[in-house]
Amino acid sequence: MGDVKDITSRDIDFAKWYTDVVTKAGLIDYSSVKGSMIICPYGYAIWESMQKILDESFKKTGHENVQMPLFIPESLLNIEKEHVQGFAPEVAWVTEGGKEKLDERLCVRPTSEVLFCDYYKKVIKSYRDLPKLYNQWCTIVRWEKTTRPFLRSREILWQEGHTMHATEEEAIAETLRMLHIYEDFQKNYLAIPVIIGKKTEKEKFAGAVSSYSLEAMMYDGVALQNGTSHYFGQNFAASFGIEYLNKDNKLVTPYQTSWGVTTRMIGALIMVHGDDRGLVIPPKIAPVKVILIPINDKIEVIESVKKIEEELNNNNISYKIDNSNKTPGYKFAQAEVKGYPVRIEIGPRDLKENKVTLVRRDTLEKITCNIKDIISTLNTLFIKMQDDMYNKALKRRDSMIYEAHDYKEFTEIANNKPGFIKANWCGDVACENKIKEDFNMKSRCLIEDEEITTNCVCCNKPAKYRLYFGRQY
Amino acid sequence: MGDVKDITSRDIDFAKWYTDVVTKAGLIDYSSVKGSMIICPYGYAIWESMQKILDESFKKTGHENVQMPLFIPESLLNIEKEHVQGFAPEVAWVTEGGKEKLDERLCVRPTSEVLFCDYYKKVIKSYRDLPKLYNQWCTIVRWEKTTRPFLRSREILWQEGHTMHATEEEAIAETLRMLHIYEDFQKNYLAIPVIIGKKTEKEKFAGAVSSYSLEAMMYDGVALQNGTSHYFGQNFAASFGIEYLNKDNKLVTPYQTSWGVTTRMIGALIMVHGDDRGLVIPPKIAPVKVILIPINDKIEVIESVKKIEEELNNNNISYKIDNSNKTPGYKFAQAEVKGYPVRIEIGPRDLKENKVTLVRRDTLEKITCNIKDIISTLNTLFIKMQDDMYNKALKRRDSMIYEAHDYKEFTEIANNKPGFIKANWCGDVACENKIKEDFNMKSRCLIEDEEITTNCVCCNKPAKYRLYFGRQY
Repeated sequence: MGDVKDITSRDIDFAKWYTDVVTKAGLIDYSSVKGSMIICPYGYAIWESMQKILDESFKKTGHENVQMPLFIPESLLNIEKEHVQGFAPEVAWVTEGGKEKLDERLCVRPTSEVLFCDYYKKVIKSYRDLPKLYNQWCTIVRWEKTTRPFLRSREILWQEGHTMHATEEEAIAETLRMLHIYEDFQKNYLAIPVIIGKKTEKEKFAGAVSSYSLEAMMYDGVALQNGTSHYFGQNFAASFGIEYLNKDNKLVTPYQTSWGVTTRMIGALIMVHGDDRGLVIPPKIAPVKVILIPINDKIEVIESVKKIEEELNNNNISYKIDNSNKTPGYKFAQAEVKGYPVRIEIGPRDLKENKVTLVRRDTLEKITCNIKDIISTLNTLFIKMQDDMYNKALKRRDSMIYEAHDYKEFTEIANNKPGFIKANWCGDVACENKIKEDFNMKSRCLIEDEEITTNCVCCNKPAKYRLYFGRQY
Repeated sequence: MGDVKDITSRDIDFAKWYTDVVTKAGLIDYSSVKGSMIICPYGYAIWESMQKILDESFKKTGHENVQMPLFIPESLLNIEKEHVQGFAPEVAWVTEGGKEKLDERLCVRPTSEVLFCDYYKKVIKSYRDLPKLYNQWCTIVRWEKTTRPFLRSREILWQEGHTMHATEEEAIAETLRMLHIYEDFQKNYLAIPVIIGKKTEKEKFAGAVSSYSLEAMMYDGVALQNGTSHYFGQNFAASFGIEYLNKDNKLVTPYQTSWGVTTRMIGALIMVHGDDRGLVIPPKIAPVKVILIPINDKIEVIESVKKIEEELNNNNISYKIDNSNKTPGYKFAQAEVKGYPVRIEIGPRDLKENKVTLVRRDTLEKITCNIKDIISTLNTLFIKMQDDMYNKALKRRDSMIYEAHDYKEFTEIANNKPGFIKANWCGDVACENKIKEDFNMKSRCLIEDEEITTNCVCCNKPAKYRLYFGRQY
């Protein structure tokens, strides 16, 4: 863990700032295994905090956790044609086991659609077996050439839900239900505003009928796709020959979904809320909500720390104490790098009046508070901080969304203003490709609830859709 | 999920009984990926229940969770010589990534000592950096030829703790502390009596100074090694060149441990407590403690079920309801296969007196209970069942431990009586090997607290140790 002065300013070099924060806050360390990262205790604690809340949401909506194999035989990956084309170029292949060469290559799962289908083919025989609502928490592997902590890595920790339904309606409803569970989680816990919407044909998942994504905007105006939910129709089910007897005793094919979020969300947390002093973690997701900093080791300070600890314990508020022999200033800076939501400074001057000083990490505002009121003050503060952090992120994001009516306007914005661009689009992939080539901007997702008022921003032919465009991580 | 009559009797064919229970109870399903199993929702829920309790114990004792890479470059695996000899023959090798052949083979981690050492070399610089108390929950891969659900599989879910300490004493204390945490967990939650002790040189972990194991005896008298804790001394640390500045400003090498338990514990749970009707799960580890079975769908039955549900919810007692249109008898049998600790039968006859019938899964004893007393009756019952199950397992195990004073006695017991054999031993690996060859019995662990009264059971030379011998899964 380094010093706060080692953090590059985010306005000077955002990429360097990100790497500095990730390592100085103790979230990630580099390993000597190329392309793989080490998730350090503090980073993993944030992931556990996310897992706990999401897993409860999944279980409340009737989903069950399972564990599928880590490996996919090549022949199994090959069954769904679009899917294999999308994934085969970026997988790791096991070709030897023990001392022997394998008869068939096994890829380390990049995602598990085919494994779930292989299983569902075996267990779905009757309408009574539906719906199947399974999820798994696991590691996946994608053979990325360039990697960045949490954002792009050869190994990814994630959850993947895979469900099967009797009807199209029910499967589409599931796809959207999970999209909204992700949206609620990111808004209410991560304090991250997200745009949700359908992906274009070009950008959808390999093998899906339609894909929906959550698009968050980072501090630098770049998009982070922060979760996806896919509707597969009968694509995989038909390829795998999954059929069941319906109520009329006819053999029919079920409808499928999959949905997932990853440790990328930690990257989003950093890049939406972090500042030049380090991480800023919203209280509702923070694994450590309060850091106690004794200003010296006088007896009255030590005793007050003990009293506050007891109160925090009794009220289930997670905390840490910095008892190191560093200066208060150093401890404050370290607490700021870590992004603990509230720091409590316990010093002799305040204690004369039975008080301590609370410092909000997001605004650095100081609040003097009587020790006996500490829990109520904290609880009020946590709610306020959570709201303020969301609103601040929302305001900043909205101020960086622009409308382009024609290609000149689009060019002007794309070249000068970081952020998202809203535009009308004819629906032709050629226009998407041109924008990608000219500005390195991809379509984020469709805007469904706004009127189309002009022609395609690219080719000027009649527009059929509205879209968000943006550069992406 | 099949019918109870499909379960083979455990006294007729124990191996077949085990496979029947594992599949009929919905714990595991076979996948078309050779050597890999699918852990089904009920099996995974048991694992989550185990994880939750153990993870809390680890955190209470100061351990932090991390996530290390999935892959180990061959050169990294090769650093510790004994270790690589032990593991290289049974790993899976990734040789291709994306479309390219890799310069260096990567093995899928069979265990992560070398990954932790590689990291510790980087971050342990001063005595202030010690101890390091890290754990990870993950999947490991060992290229087994023959596999059995939960017991031997190419993929294993486990946790692995890896710690570094300033002194030998502290590292040995940690090795034993974790052994005792496992022992407490298995006794108090799994209701499984375990023998703990040091492994012989022949049986210890590749690269360890000493290994300790937990040895449980299954219903058929066969041992299951149900967890291990290893003391490494400075073996790995020296090979990896891990050094730190101690308080006297001298560069010294730290001392290391590792410890782990796996989904094997689910296998032990089945084979210690299960019976011819299926699983029997101790209340403290059961993901579903109560199964409610309405005897019919009369209004008073439905209303009573609702009332009981509310009570169970209010008291945080996990439950399921069998609302299927099957006969009560069928539902009872299904509940027995699943091993839910208590079944509550709600029928019109009992309800006339405001009563329901509770059935203990372990003894099948019926208890009639007034609805208003249901929670207190259940809570008392859970405690009693947990104790009874442990004591029953303990009594059975102890009745299957024999003493052999010479090779004739050993032969007599080994050929006729399933279970463990206690014997004195000279310490020569030749005697261990002979017993292995003659009876397919391995030494389980050393007995430290009993007097050595006779010569080596094998060669009749003076004995130095006492040992447990047993066949193993």
